[in-house]
Amino acid sequence: MTPVSLPSPTPPPALSRADALFAFVQEILPYRRSITGDGLRQTLDAIGERIPLQVHEVFSGMPVLDWNAPQEWSVHEAHITLPDGTRIADWEASPLHLVQYSGPREERRTLASLRPHLHTLPQHPDWIPYRTAYWTDDWGFCLRHKTLEAALERFGEDAEVDVLIDSRLREGAMSVGECVIQGETEREILISAHACHPALANDNASALAVATFAAEALAQADDLHHTIRFVFAPGTIGAIAWLAANPGCGERIAGGYVLANLGDRGPFVYKQTRRGTLDAPTAADRAVSTLYPGIETRPFDPFGYDERQYNSPGFNLPIGRLTRTPHGEYPEYHTSADDLALLSPEALADALDTVLTLVTALDGNARYFATQTYGEPMLGRRGLYEPIGGVALAPEAQRAMIWVLNLSDGRHDLLHIAQRSGLPFDAVRAAADRLLAADLLRFAPDSDAPGDA
Amino acid sequence: MTPVSLPSPTPPPALSRADALFAFVQEILPYRRSITGDGLRQTLDAIGERIPLQVHEVFSGMPVLDWNAPQEWSVHEAHITLPDGTRIADWEASPLHLVQYSGPREERRTLASLRPHLHTLPQHPDWIPYRTAYWTDDWGFCLRHKTLEAALERFGEDAEVDVLIDSRLREGAMSVGECVIQGETEREILISAHACHPALANDNASALAVATFAAEALAQADDLHHTIRFVFAPGTIGAIAWLAANPGCGERIAGGYVLANLGDRGPFVYKQTRRGTLDAPTAADRAVSTLYPGIETRPFDPFGYDERQYNSPGFNLPIGRLTRTPHGEYPEYHTSADDLALLSPEALADALDTVLTLVTALDGNARYFATQTYGEPMLGRRGLYEPIGGVALAPEAQRAMIWVLNLSDGRHDLLHIAQRSGLPFDAVRAAADRLLAADLLRFAPDSDAPGDA
Amino acid sequence: MTPVSLPSPTPPPALSRADALFAFVQEILPYRRSITGDGLRQTLDAIGERIPLQVHEVFSGMPVLDWNAPQEWSVHEAHITLPDGTRIADWEASPLHLVQYSGPREERRTLASLRPHLHTLPQHPDWIPYRTAYWTDDWGFCLRHKTLEAALERFGEDAEVDVLIDSRLREGAMSVGECVIQGETEREILISAHACHPALANDNASALAVATFAAEALAQADDLHHTIRFVFAPGTIGAIAWLAANPGCGERIAGGYVLANLGDRGPFVYKQTRRGTLDAPTAADRAVSTLYPGIETRPFDPFGYDERQYNSPGFNLPIGRLTRTPHGEYPEYHTSADDLALLSPEALADALDTVLTLVTALDGNARYFATQTYGEPMLGRRGLYEPIGGVALAPEAQRAMIWVLNLSDGRHDLLHIAQRSGLPFDAVRAAADRLLAADLLRFAPDSDAPGDA
Repeated sequence: MTPVSLPSPTPPPALSRADALFAFVQEILPYRRSITGDGLRQTLDAIGERIPLQVHEVFSGMPVLDWNAPQEWSVHEAHITLPDGTRIADWEASPLHLVQYSGPREERRTLASLRPHLHTLPQHPDWIPYRTAYWTDDWGFCLRHKTLEAALERFGEDAEVDVLIDSRLREGAMSVGECVIQGETEREILISAHACHPALANDNASALAVATFAAEALAQADDLHHTIRFVFAPGTIGAIAWLAANPGCGERIAGGYVLANLGDRGPFVYKQTRRGTLDAPTAADRAVSTLYPGIETRPFDPFGYDERQYNSPGFNLPIGRLTRTPHGEYPEYHTSADDLALLSPEALADALDTVLTLVTALDGNARYFATQTYGEPMLGRRGLYEPIGGVALAPEAQRAMIWVLNLSDGRHDLLHIAQRSGLPFDAVRAAADRLLAADLLRFAPDSDAPGDA
Repeated sequence: MTPVSLPSPTPPPALSRADALFAFVQEILPYRRSITGDGLRQTLDAIGERIPLQVHEVFSGMPVLDWNAPQEWSVHEAHITLPDGTRIADWEASPLHLVQYSGPREERRTLASLRPHLHTLPQHPDWIPYRTAYWTDDWGFCLRHKTLEAALERFGEDAEVDVLIDSRLREGAMSVGECVIQGETEREILISAHACHPALANDNASALAVATFAAEALAQADDLHHTIRFVFAPGTIGAIAWLAANPGCGERIAGGYVLANLGDRGPFVYKQTRRGTLDAPTAADRAVSTLYPGIETRPFDPFGYDERQYNSPGFNLPIGRLTRTPHGEYPEYHTSADDLALLSPEALADALDTVLTLVTALDGNARYFATQTYGEPMLGRRGLYEPIGGVALAPEAQRAMIWVLNLSDGRHDLLHIAQRSGLPFDAVRAAADRLLAADLLRFAPDSDAPGDA
Repeated sequence: MTPVSLPSPTPPPALSRADALFAFVQEILPYRRSITGDGLRQTLDAIGERIPLQVHEVFSGMPVLDWNAPQEWSVHEAHITLPDGTRIADWEASPLHLVQYSGPREERRTLASLRPHLHTLPQHPDWIPYRTAYWTDDWGFCLRHKTLEAALERFGEDAEVDVLIDSRLREGAMSVGECVIQGETEREILISAHACHPALANDNASALAVATFAAEALAQADDLHHTIRFVFAPGTIGAIAWLAANPGCGERIAGGYVLANLGDRGPFVYKQTRRGTLDAPTAADRAVSTLYPGIETRPFDPFGYDERQYNSPGFNLPIGRLTRTPHGEYPEYHTSADDLALLSPEALADALDTVLTLVTALDGNARYFATQTYGEPMLGRRGLYEPIGGVALAPEAQRAMIWVLNLSDGRHDLLHIAQRSGLPFDAVRAAADRLLAADLLRFAPDSDAPGDA
């Protein structure tokens, strides 16, 4: 068992990995995503052009856990027209202008009576907010505050305007994409990114791109121990549908991450798994704290992205969340200002490296039992020890072996040993391989590593 | 189950609650309390005029745990008279002048020979100390150091003085007062204050007043879930007698507090229960840390007031202690300077509020199981979710529901959830009620809340 | 059970204990120790003149755990002679000049070809390093860097030099010394010091002296509860041989310490047992943190001296390590500069006091059950309480009794109680004796103290 060596993705010449990621964000950004519909399917198609993707269609109304799959929503046009014929909100110009899942409607009414259905951001008068109404009969438009103010000033609140929403809610299906990279075992690492937000760059085109490129790189590795599963699903209901279809996933999932907001210029923020505590982190948590001790880590809370569902108490999966700036903590969040200008190609590339490093570490993680526990085993006669003794500090490889031997009691995994010893994970992983070859270790029965059977 | 709404006690017009508390301290301060006797009974009578109080008389000699109930002590007069007829210690002037439980004695002897039986405070020459000799044949007088110095200077240590203690120790009884406010269940919250110290204002007329007024307020609530029990008992032996009579109290007590020294101007100090640790506080501990995170909290130690008995290892009750300045930490402690001047009416009123808030929180505390644990339950179709989504921060009520759902695994109580979420306890309590009504929660079998049977 | 009173060792008049320790280091320093052979035997003889020492001879080749006992190594002479007849490394001048376990060899070869077998310290050109080759066929010489430089400059690297190693490796035996001071019970405290380093003062003649003097003092105590065992053994293989001969020692060992580097002027450093954690230290760990809270404590790691073997996962003995400056952390470590000038007689004497204090505390440590746990027991009628009450702070002896009663639940030992209460261990130990005599305590069944059977 050697550490997985990842071939670098081979971008077209002249296009760096950072630029390729950015270009992919640019490609998928315009699709008019929602929790169902064509924009979502176009996005999954684009992803499927780069990696082997299976798209599941979950029929509307299908019971999924405590929910039902939603009706499928499509929009032909939607706008509000002022008496002079100008439009103050037009879905054609931006999908954000229409509250998601607004039903069909055609009427003339006063601006005053329309006001409760108009969402603006007085503090950011140039930005269009993003709002949803998936599970109600509510509807509305989102527009720039300054546009609304100008209209009111010019026409007054009693002016009659034309409202048109040419949309459709029908029995259709919700699409969920899945990419499975088969490893030596059925033990699994899960990576998930929500795919429902329309026209928002950081949230979440950025993470869709990073996840896609990570899958692309891992698909070229030929020595993965774990199976790596990527889920591209509409937020909340998509994750719920996936969980409903995988009720026993807790048995096979060794760890994983929800990815979101990976393109902005902020530092990474890691949110722990619900199962993990400060004293007893899960492997997913420990991979972050061991390999990236500088990353800000926050305890689990039941808010945010689909870690909410994966960590719901019944499933309680060991899945953390990696973001740069978390939801709600940057002013452009859920507005039209979450656009390409917010992103940095280098931030995307750095996120990709980080995800690949974490997945590789989780993949190489395992727990062992030392076979010789009474006194230290004699490493010398196995060729594992420096011939001349007496120096103050033994070489790293030797120290790594001694740490692994001392802590391999079936409870401490290699991530734990790396953290406790302060040695690089790769050195610890390599030490375990040498000791395994020398019959000084055996796999713990329920280790995440391939068994010795 | 709705949070208990406490009617404010209705003081006579023109008398604020703070002033009413102070007036009650003033009323009971002069009674010549001891661990038995008339002063104790007068105090309990005064309390009984405000709240329904049952007074138990424990006969002298009755075995109570490792102890026996004390003889009853009464004093008619007691003094030391100098050759010129002046008295340097006179029980009539202050009950502190006589060491508690000094037996009868009439003799003429030199000041020098009397010296071992005279207690003074050289560092506070104007103050009379408070001393006791309950369980020995010892006896003595307490007096101002300057008075003793003056007598010695004037008459010399060979001067003969007249000692008279007209006291009586006889087979009688020890009085223990109890006020029980019946709630919906037999699960109980215990509040205890020692009632034996004579003529000391802070220690413990202050806490007797606060406990009495708290009982008065709670007796007017009509929706208590727990039964609230107040114990007004002589220190140590009174609590021991109460425990002896309630050997199975551990089964029913959900939490509680010993109250003492609540009238001085110092900040509150909370002493944890013996069972509670930093990592695993009891509900009584957590109520303080959640609702009053600023209160200084100290780990349990086996010194102080009757928490010693309630927390003795065999009982190990989850009863903490709330004081302002703890025993021994203010110079006037156990001296005649622990008088009304030390007290502030506002400090008393603030203590009353604090006690009522803590008791109400303990009363509303419970543990639940979420009924839908696989994925988040769909709150929308139950009318529990805002129709328009996408805003950065959900309203408090909604966040409270999501926290309660996420942590209701039968182990975390609402106090824990309030602390973990940073939300107000009342919001968490209200969220639990909404979720309970929507069948999304059920009571944990051994919860302190009323069962759903 | 009273605390052990240790007679002070009686040094010859005019020789303080500090000077006596230093003189003993001086006496044993010159012996040419290795993991076998005459120097080791001379050292054990010198120790055996002061304390009852049993010397075990472990035959070469004997299987001991995963190892085999080494061949016995002896040296008659060993040197490198330059063309002009001068010697640049001569075992006669210092045993450090020859790499330990270098086999016989006689040859003329160039300095260049010899270079891989020459060990020097370029950064400390005046010091001879200490190197070993116990378990390989390797060999070599250690010399001052400046001597080698001068030889190369004068004769050039093509100069031919005469190499002679008149040594012998044969089937013999390895010596392990043991001093057992029988206590009332078979429960044991283990003290171990490595005895194989030649001509190094701090590492480890210092600790050999401290251990010897500690055994000398304890052998004169007549009231030890535990049996105290001292092991003087070659590093690594000696401890392994001892463990191989004592496979069940974990059953009887209550705690202990590996001693090393106790003579330098640095502060003490304590290395915790592997079993002990910050939250749950072993008694050996707690003795240090309770009695010497100022000592720097480090978590266990699998490097250092024979604590490596005692704490190997199979044995996992509760044995910590006490040093002054740890291995590798002083520049003179494993060089000829680790000489008498590095040592201070006072440092040795202070180390002896510390070891005796720790052993005495471990010896007096025990866990109890309070016999009266419902309410505080009435100490007054047992003569254990001050007759006059009311003072702010009870005397230390009384506080110690109340702490012991409160925490004696079979889980907390006296060291724990001392630490938790902040009271001196001796006071806590004395309180336990008084309570035991009053039948208010009984020994916990698996306590380290003598049973009451």
